[in-house]
Amino acid sequence: MLENELTKRLKINYPIIQAPMAGGATTSKLVAAVSNSGGLGFIGAGYLTPSQLREQIREIKTMTSNCFGVNLFVPQSFHASEDEVAAAMQVLEPIHQKLKISQSKQVDFPSLDKQLDTFKQQIKVIIEEKVPICSFTFGIPSKEVVTELKQHHIFLIGTATTVSEAKEVEHSGMDAVVLQGSEAGGHRGNFSEEALEKSMVGLMSLIPQAADHVTIPVIAAGGIMDGRGLIASIFLGAKAVQMGTAFLTCVESGAHPIHKEKILHSKENEIVITRSFSGKCARGIENQFIKEMRGYEELLPCFPIQNTLTQAIRNAAGQQNQHDYMSLWSGQSPRLAKNQTVENLINSIICQAEKLKNC
Amino acid sequence: MLENELTKRLKINYPIIQAPMAGGATTSKLVAAVSNSGGLGFIGAGYLTPSQLREQIREIKTMTSNCFGVNLFVPQSFHASEDEVAAAMQVLEPIHQKLKISQSKQVDFPSLDKQLDTFKQQIKVIIEEKVPICSFTFGIPSKEVVTELKQHHIFLIGTATTVSEAKEVEHSGMDAVVLQGSEAGGHRGNFSEEALEKSMVGLMSLIPQAADHVTIPVIAAGGIMDGRGLIASIFLGAKAVQMGTAFLTCVESGAHPIHKEKILHSKENEIVITRSFSGKCARGIENQFIKEMRGYEELLPCFPIQNTLTQAIRNAAGQQNQHDYMSLWSGQSPRLAKNQTVENLINSIICQAEKLKNC
Repeated sequence: MLENELTKRLKINYPIIQAPMAGGATTSKLVAAVSNSGGLGFIGAGYLTPSQLREQIREIKTMTSNCFGVNLFVPQSFHASEDEVAAAMQVLEPIHQKLKISQSKQVDFPSLDKQLDTFKQQIKVIIEEKVPICSFTFGIPSKEVVTELKQHHIFLIGTATTVSEAKEVEHSGMDAVVLQGSEAGGHRGNFSEEALEKSMVGLMSLIPQAADHVTIPVIAAGGIMDGRGLIASIFLGAKAVQMGTAFLTCVESGAHPIHKEKILHSKENEIVITRSFSGKCARGIENQFIKEMRGYEELLPCFPIQNTLTQAIRNAAGQQNQHDYMSLWSGQSPRLAKNQTVENLINSIICQAEKLKNC
Repeated sequence: MLENELTKRLKINYPIIQAPMAGGATTSKLVAAVSNSGGLGFIGAGYLTPSQLREQIREIKTMTSNCFGVNLFVPQSFHASEDEVAAAMQVLEPIHQKLKISQSKQVDFPSLDKQLDTFKQQIKVIIEEKVPICSFTFGIPSKEVVTELKQHHIFLIGTATTVSEAKEVEHSGMDAVVLQGSEAGGHRGNFSEEALEKSMVGLMSLIPQAADHVTIPVIAAGGIMDGRGLIASIFLGAKAVQMGTAFLTCVESGAHPIHKEKILHSKENEIVITRSFSGKCARGIENQFIKEMRGYEELLPCFPIQNTLTQAIRNAAGQQNQHDYMSLWSGQSPRLAKNQTVENLINSIICQAEKLKNC
């Protein structure tokens, strides 16, 4: 039951994929440890330059001979007026002062053209470095990109939050689809033009409904932390699980020590959705920043503008060990998080799953 | 695996409980059919008078000799100012006109005392009629009520949406707890004083975390429709499932035919949370009423005031077959709903679960 067509194609022993958490958590150590322990490690490359990506791929190759993947953000068009940006900067100013950040008046926003160019170069790196698996968040890449990657026999995975998004991923020619349940931590991967609420579907509902409507393998993501979640996901119709928070608190993860600590001491009802860090909805532990921004949330500019605007705050908060102003992404199962090695985590999941299965 | 301590105590063959849907869906036919098919039928008595409740209990007893339960709403204190009520009535007025409802200027709101009195009488009926199982929504009854029911050996089930609510239910002396995941249709059962969002936890996260923190059996509710959901819930740590939407579209259910039809043709991303029908958050299919009320949602009075204010609209909409103004409660798995007999539903769930289990 834990081996199937998907695990064979991904060349992994266990149907466990480490979620590609962009922003520093997916160190080479983490990715390699997951792949060395029988799962699939993933570089969260959304914020990496093409040369950083190449460097990390090469580093991981020295640490494991097993498969690993790279996740990219699909660039989306965006717009923010000067007034919107000015208003957001004003709202953030008191926090800059509190953290003693010398406000640089010139914030450099990446244009869509620049982002598309970076994306193209990231794709080039993936092909040149012969990375066998590539996944996408925030949308579906162009037909040309899909075709090019498939010509190089790269296994493609899309991300969906509803059945219709899963169908779109399938129609685009991808080989598998991650179903991101409402339980999931970090950024929401929804890409359809509909209200967030309508794409907040719990995995108990999302997995079986999506599995009934697409023929490609579905991968469950959101709140899965142990053998119970793995077995349940498989029975609901998934062929593998993708876990973020469970790996984020592992020894090998590059998440800030305070971020790990906060997850280890949080409860499921302290985890909220906010768009105030990046302009895109994401799930994390409620802190001072989220509370202070609540009244302004609708006014803040969209991703990636707001993300750029809060960068100095997030950096300073990290350096100053100030959890109040860090983005403490987490899924809805923090009570199940542990600080352990990746090998321990994966072994205990499989051990628990095998035991349950034989009950 | 499908038999356990809980099924033994509830005297049921299968770990399947029919959710107590107040408002007309839980006809005697439905409740009796569930209990006759090996599950546990439940009267949703929240809106029933004590004499209506007694009558239905007696009717069901003529239709089945198996166990069934009664669910009650725990009265909560509430307040709405005259201005709030007047404002809500003004917002609802155009809909009254559209549905040609002759506005009665005197709307009769039940006081808390009146509600507590009704509740006390409902409890009396349950004891006198020797109903063996009683569940509660919207809170925990007083110690006196719990003690009295337990003296009569009635099995008590509470409803929780977070781990801490589940602990409260356990501490109150109840025998089991329903975990209502964010996927669930109808009213949210949260009773803690915290923002709705924090009690919207998906079952993949809620079941294992709650199962780790209480010793009483947990029952999973929300989006469960078939054998996949049953098996998954059990592996996550539940001892039984409680299903609403799956029974609501059954032949024996008393839900409005248009309500059934709408669920059978809905998708998971058409189901939203609204407080505009009753003043309490609930999940249902988005329709004209929900859209029209969206801008006013925060201003509307609380439950049960708003529920009383919209009663004429819901009644007229039902009589006129106007789905735009009916409360079309549904969980997040409408694609899995079928119009079939209760016996077929339960048999197919068990058959699918047995097959999966032996895979």
